[in-house]
Amino acid sequence: MSYVLVVKIGGSILSDHEVYGKIADKLSSLDADRVVVVTSALRNVTNELLAGMERRDQITEIVSSIYDRHLNVLSKIADGVNFERAFQQLSKLSDELFRVAWSVKVLDEITPRVRDYVLSFGERMSVVLLDAALRTYGLITSGLPEPVMVTDENFGEANVIEFDTSVKLRELIGKSDSKVLVVPGFIGVSPSGKLTTVGRGGSDYTATLVGRFLGAEEVRLVTEVPGIMTGDPKRFPGAKTISRLSLEEALELALLGVKRFHPRTFEPMFQTNLRVRVENLTEPGCTIVEGTCSDYGIKGVAIIDDAKVLSVESTRMAGKVGSAAAIMSEAKDAQVNLISFSQPASETTIQLLVNSDSSTKLRERLRTMEGKLIKAVHETDASAVSVVGCGLRSREMFKRVLEVSSGYDVLSVSRGLNRVSVTFVVERSQGEQLAKELHRVVVSG
Amino acid sequence: MSYVLVVKIGGSILSDHEVYGKIADKLSSLDADRVVVVTSALRNVTNELLAGMERRDQITEIVSSIYDRHLNVLSKIADGVNFERAFQQLSKLSDELFRVAWSVKVLDEITPRVRDYVLSFGERMSVVLLDAALRTYGLITSGLPEPVMVTDENFGEANVIEFDTSVKLRELIGKSDSKVLVVPGFIGVSPSGKLTTVGRGGSDYTATLVGRFLGAEEVRLVTEVPGIMTGDPKRFPGAKTISRLSLEEALELALLGVKRFHPRTFEPMFQTNLRVRVENLTEPGCTIVEGTCSDYGIKGVAIIDDAKVLSVESTRMAGKVGSAAAIMSEAKDAQVNLISFSQPASETTIQLLVNSDSSTKLRERLRTMEGKLIKAVHETDASAVSVVGCGLRSREMFKRVLEVSSGYDVLSVSRGLNRVSVTFVVERSQGEQLAKELHRVVVSG
Amino acid sequence: MSYVLVVKIGGSILSDHEVYGKIADKLSSLDADRVVVVTSALRNVTNELLAGMERRDQITEIVSSIYDRHLNVLSKIADGVNFERAFQQLSKLSDELFRVAWSVKVLDEITPRVRDYVLSFGERMSVVLLDAALRTYGLITSGLPEPVMVTDENFGEANVIEFDTSVKLRELIGKSDSKVLVVPGFIGVSPSGKLTTVGRGGSDYTATLVGRFLGAEEVRLVTEVPGIMTGDPKRFPGAKTISRLSLEEALELALLGVKRFHPRTFEPMFQTNLRVRVENLTEPGCTIVEGTCSDYGIKGVAIIDDAKVLSVESTRMAGKVGSAAAIMSEAKDAQVNLISFSQPASETTIQLLVNSDSSTKLRERLRTMEGKLIKAVHETDASAVSVVGCGLRSREMFKRVLEVSSGYDVLSVSRGLNRVSVTFVVERSQGEQLAKELHRVVVSG
Amino acid sequence: MSYVLVVKIGGSILSDHEVYGKIADKLSSLDADRVVVVTSALRNVTNELLAGMERRDQITEIVSSIYDRHLNVLSKIADGVNFERAFQQLSKLSDELFRVAWSVKVLDEITPRVRDYVLSFGERMSVVLLDAALRTYGLITSGLPEPVMVTDENFGEANVIEFDTSVKLRELIGKSDSKVLVVPGFIGVSPSGKLTTVGRGGSDYTATLVGRFLGAEEVRLVTEVPGIMTGDPKRFPGAKTISRLSLEEALELALLGVKRFHPRTFEPMFQTNLRVRVENLTEPGCTIVEGTCSDYGIKGVAIIDDAKVLSVESTRMAGKVGSAAAIMSEAKDAQVNLISFSQPASETTIQLLVNSDSSTKLRERLRTMEGKLIKAVHETDASAVSVVGCGLRSREMFKRVLEVSSGYDVLSVSRGLNRVSVTFVVERSQGEQLAKELHRVVVSG
Repeated sequence: MSYVLVVKIGGSILSDHEVYGKIADKLSSLDADRVVVVTSALRNVTNELLAGMERRDQITEIVSSIYDRHLNVLSKIADGVNFERAFQQLSKLSDELFRVAWSVKVLDEITPRVRDYVLSFGERMSVVLLDAALRTYGLITSGLPEPVMVTDENFGEANVIEFDTSVKLRELIGKSDSKVLVVPGFIGVSPSGKLTTVGRGGSDYTATLVGRFLGAEEVRLVTEVPGIMTGDPKRFPGAKTISRLSLEEALELALLGVKRFHPRTFEPMFQTNLRVRVENLTEPGCTIVEGTCSDYGIKGVAIIDDAKVLSVESTRMAGKVGSAAAIMSEAKDAQVNLISFSQPASETTIQLLVNSDSSTKLRERLRTMEGKLIKAVHETDASAVSVVGCGLRSREMFKRVLEVSSGYDVLSVSRGLNRVSVTFVVERSQGEQLAKELHRVVVSG
Repeated sequence: MSYVLVVKIGGSILSDHEVYGKIADKLSSLDADRVVVVTSALRNVTNELLAGMERRDQITEIVSSIYDRHLNVLSKIADGVNFERAFQQLSKLSDELFRVAWSVKVLDEITPRVRDYVLSFGERMSVVLLDAALRTYGLITSGLPEPVMVTDENFGEANVIEFDTSVKLRELIGKSDSKVLVVPGFIGVSPSGKLTTVGRGGSDYTATLVGRFLGAEEVRLVTEVPGIMTGDPKRFPGAKTISRLSLEEALELALLGVKRFHPRTFEPMFQTNLRVRVENLTEPGCTIVEGTCSDYGIKGVAIIDDAKVLSVESTRMAGKVGSAAAIMSEAKDAQVNLISFSQPASETTIQLLVNSDSSTKLRERLRTMEGKLIKAVHETDASAVSVVGCGLRSREMFKRVLEVSSGYDVLSVSRGLNRVSVTFVVERSQGEQLAKELHRVVVSG
Repeated sequence: MSYVLVVKIGGSILSDHEVYGKIADKLSSLDADRVVVVTSALRNVTNELLAGMERRDQITEIVSSIYDRHLNVLSKIADGVNFERAFQQLSKLSDELFRVAWSVKVLDEITPRVRDYVLSFGERMSVVLLDAALRTYGLITSGLPEPVMVTDENFGEANVIEFDTSVKLRELIGKSDSKVLVVPGFIGVSPSGKLTTVGRGGSDYTATLVGRFLGAEEVRLVTEVPGIMTGDPKRFPGAKTISRLSLEEALELALLGVKRFHPRTFEPMFQTNLRVRVENLTEPGCTIVEGTCSDYGIKGVAIIDDAKVLSVESTRMAGKVGSAAAIMSEAKDAQVNLISFSQPASETTIQLLVNSDSSTKLRERLRTMEGKLIKAVHETDASAVSVVGCGLRSREMFKRVLEVSSGYDVLSVSRGLNRVSVTFVVERSQGEQLAKELHRVVVSG
Repeated sequence: MSYVLVVKIGGSILSDHEVYGKIADKLSSLDADRVVVVTSALRNVTNELLAGMERRDQITEIVSSIYDRHLNVLSKIADGVNFERAFQQLSKLSDELFRVAWSVKVLDEITPRVRDYVLSFGERMSVVLLDAALRTYGLITSGLPEPVMVTDENFGEANVIEFDTSVKLRELIGKSDSKVLVVPGFIGVSPSGKLTTVGRGGSDYTATLVGRFLGAEEVRLVTEVPGIMTGDPKRFPGAKTISRLSLEEALELALLGVKRFHPRTFEPMFQTNLRVRVENLTEPGCTIVEGTCSDYGIKGVAIIDDAKVLSVESTRMAGKVGSAAAIMSEAKDAQVNLISFSQPASETTIQLLVNSDSSTKLRERLRTMEGKLIKAVHETDASAVSVVGCGLRSREMFKRVLEVSSGYDVLSVSRGLNRVSVTFVVERSQGEQLAKELHRVVVSG
């Protein structure tokens, strides 16, 4: 098979017309037989569509302005026949979107199916622009503004049907002669033809899936920043780009890092030789994700600030089969995600870390159990500080990290996949300081 | 109201006839208007009865030998009219027990109700012996070989009906003129007259409940050892008796300490001035449980050795409401108690610490979820090392403890009630060493 | 309070512009202080809207033609200022409907809420026409094209919130000075403002509810036929209008009669003096529904032809608690309505009468139970022939009816509310003949 | 294969020692290669054992007297070596039963397993007596006081495991040389060796099962009466023995007839040539059950007197999928068996016929639904009068029956299996008269 590259163009860099030249340059420079470009919607478009679905009385204005913006970009990146062609495609999509938006406004109701349908326009219109730009810059390109993933109809969080997707991808690549194929990320289509989405951050996941199914050498996730960073540069002054991550580290950082990936982004790498490179268009650095743990570094620090610990206390839970299930089921029924949780061996307390937003509704539910399984529920502002790195598997390095934490009033410590991450839950007043101190270790480590 | 003391006589010290003199001495020396003595069954009797219910073909021989043992003790601790009276009571109980045992053997079946009924004889016969002994030693005593607690019919783990129990106790104390009243621990009676038990270690819990309901000043839990110890002396050479514990510390140590208490033992102390003293008959030391955290010491170290960590891994759990509930429900359905558990903020892994015995059945259940919510389940031999002490609430002391742990490959850290305990889960090979090192801090701390 | 009449104008008579003059005449002739006119949609409009929601690609054409038809009628029944005013109202509603229809077409999806919303236009546009016509004919009229019933949001079969509806109605009547108030039947509005419907035939039910809440003397249900008939005149040549029905008879005939009423139509009559008169515009006859059983007549005969009996046989159901529930639950899960059912005392068979349409899906489900609870399921074409009349409560009359049936192979006999109805299930080949023979008894009886 | 007969000896005739000679005579006279005799417990023994399990303080006296009665019979029907042998067997069983009874008394508790175990002694001891008597009368006999049916462990109503039972039976018959094999009815054994029962009347069912599995020509159910009767002779003076019944008629009469059979008694006849003869020891008549409907007679009349009709009324059930399921589920949850039920096509009423005993608890449950699905529940004393006969399939005969009923205020009519039965529900005051009138038709028919 030929040498295939997959390049995902993140929405955050699709902010204006100027970026298209850089993208064209980057793609031209790639030494590959085939390049599949997976594109996100233009910057902010997904958010604007979501906002429109909330404020339905303004949705037509919102989609109008989205169309204007695409047209404006198009007029600057394409001309002649390429402009014509893209203009027609864009108008067609825009008409469809406008009709949908208008309908949503009239009916004043959004179903999960319609939500996904509306969102799909962001990626589909983006494909048209990128395709036109690349053609104008002289690349031999095919643009396909339709989904490449086949999924079930679990709208909003659709599951990829792997076999069908793999067949579909191979057919697509077989039909086209162009070196470059531009396709939308994030969106899928069900066997009965309904448009779906795979969840926020889904374009990266689309790219790695495409990479896997086409047997690509490398997937490049082109984004705003020159790679995955050791920490949030706004909070940690010395934060820098991580040059290399193992698969385990990447899986742990997917949800914890400054840039949040779809949780399944790196999953297609399992049992393949696929290499993922996170980079931007201009800066020299990048992060390579490849292989399993082989070094002993520590790679990054993350902090979740806006959280609360609910401490559930009782002597009646001790030794009682099912008490954890009873507590966790309350969280489930309250539709509250548990960021972190822990229970000591005395079984007198269960600590649940949740977003500040959802804390009250869970606390209220748990309080109805007081006097039965539960004695009392306490709530404390808290932060979760996480460190990621294969180095945490070495006694030496883990010792350093634990020693740093020993200066803080740690509420719990939990370790992630293959021990390549560790989360410290502390009172919120200590969170930032602990994170910064740990980050210093990382950077200097 | 008069000055009331409650003294619980543990089964572990009721090993032969010689102990009764010492008990009589101790009770004689008490300066109280009324003493309620709560007694356990003679040493090992409960275990033998349980064994008999398992090996039902031998149950009649087992209860015969239990009767012989009681008669043998009686012959040495009582004479004259006291012997006569106790002999009759014992024979009556023994006849009843023998009939029950024989019936169990014939029907070859045990229901939870019958199990509690059989177990009740241990405490009831023990009351007869202790009453006879105290009379022989000249104390003015009433022995009541019937339950003092009123409970529901949740056999094996019956819940005390507080109001009814309180009324019943006050009636009992009102009817009797004797200074000393001997009653059985552990067993209760339901409103419809069925015998029940409140769970292992229930005699201590009986004593504190009696103390609470009679407004006692102090409850003395007389046992084999001169108090609650800093750690298991067989494992920690320098282990010694703890002189004072707060209620929080006691609650945490109930399940963790060398001597395992019923989890609700110290619960009746809430919002009372009740003082609990754990002591033995001969040695000078004792442990006083009283009040809430006021000092900054660390009191004890415990280790659970025979455990396994199940690491449940998946990228599909991340951010998904209800994934913890799904995992915990499997544990519930498998009837597996979770000693400790934790989840880091990346939400990629849930660690469950369970007894080695129950690990396999939980692992098998979880494996049926592989490919759906779960990616993989790993099993590792593990230990849970816990430290208890109000001192853990001080930054300084907690730092010392965390620093000690930093030399080990800690899998999780979780904190208990009001932060007076902390549990470290480590690989089993490191457990004992960590525990010993922490114990040194405690003892020297 | 003043003398109030409620008049419901059925959709079946709203077939062209000529009818409006007759309606105006009728209303003018009424001797009442206030007349509330409850109107249905024009003939067939509800069916056309339903068809449009099924064939969504044609829905805009369908609503266009509905609008044209209303406009056409309007141009013939109103002129001058009344035309102007109604034209504007109609255009506004038509615009709204057109937008909704177009949106439904675009999104290609119907939710229960949207379905009710679309249907509501039939009645709302009908109010406009009727109001305009009455004004043109010189009546002092207020038209209110908005719902008068407050309901929950059980779209398609919404339940009336009685207290809120009663308050709302009294406010409406208080605000208006006109003698005649025209309001829509069938549709309601939820407390949060969503449009709902109460189920097919709901305009009659609206009228009786309005009658009850306004303390009306009489409710007139003006329809195509001069009252409720003894039977379907197409099948029973001598069928004639029933002059008087008791409440019980009306409740039984609601679902059985030639004209099918909403099942709750007569319910608002309970514990009131409300009188309901079913009549048409031209013919002299009418049916008065009033009071409880007082005569001994037999009033009507009905036949359900297109049905099947499923006979469920087993010796395992005999004496078994829950076997009927198991069978009935299958019908529920298959979404099949049971027209009639019976079980003899030998408990070997349960007979279920269902529509021919739904028979197969229920039979298939029941067959999966064969070998377990069920031995076999047989299916037979069947008819249900029902007779209604207070006379069935007299031994004499019931004997006559039973004697007639004795010439047929009756599969089951069941009696309705207060014994004023009886249903015979027979093989389909015998159904019509039995019905005709019974009808002869009725007419001659 | 040889010519096999199965003879079931009913408990009702095993009232004293004198019957054994008659049984021996009957068996001697049979012209068959092998005779399997299935025996019930002696008259009243099962009831006495059940009473003993209720009045557990008297159970040992009850089983003593049961033993005495068996011994007394034995002393009169056997001597010499036959007495010796049976005495030993009986003593052994009696010892076992006495031990069990004593245990039940002591533990004062009955589990379903123990109940079946206790009941099993009735049949097992009866086998010993019958075997001894037959030997004494010179028959070549083997007695096997152990179950021949293999069942699951659904104690009290165990389900036969057909394959295992068939294998077991063929082994038994293969091992023995005796012409006559005496085995117990009613009881079974689970694969793990626990004793079970198949429900009241289970000996007849045992006999037909044995007949089926051994390919017998005929099964004779020898009982108190000379066959199945047209009706209860205490109520219907002209009642007489029915000479021939088809399988369908027998299935219908199983639960309805004067003699109540286990509901599955005739099931083993399906798709075999098995003939069942119901007879007694002395009188000439008998009832032959054989083949399917071929004549046009009416065979019997039954009446259930002590019943109530609950009429569940509502206009909200009409046309509503699931309303019957909701009502029936209440009956299930209340553990109430429905003798008969019906619903007319107006769907305004569901009539449930239940035993008077259970009426109140069902009515109370249904009343909690008033105001929701249900408008009101009425209760009336009622009787169910059933007629059985293939003749009901002929129009002529059914007409006569319906005409009789037309003189009564019939609440419902329902037909059973293949239309060979019909049940009339009437008010209780009319029940007996209707039954008598119908019986006259039958007898003269």
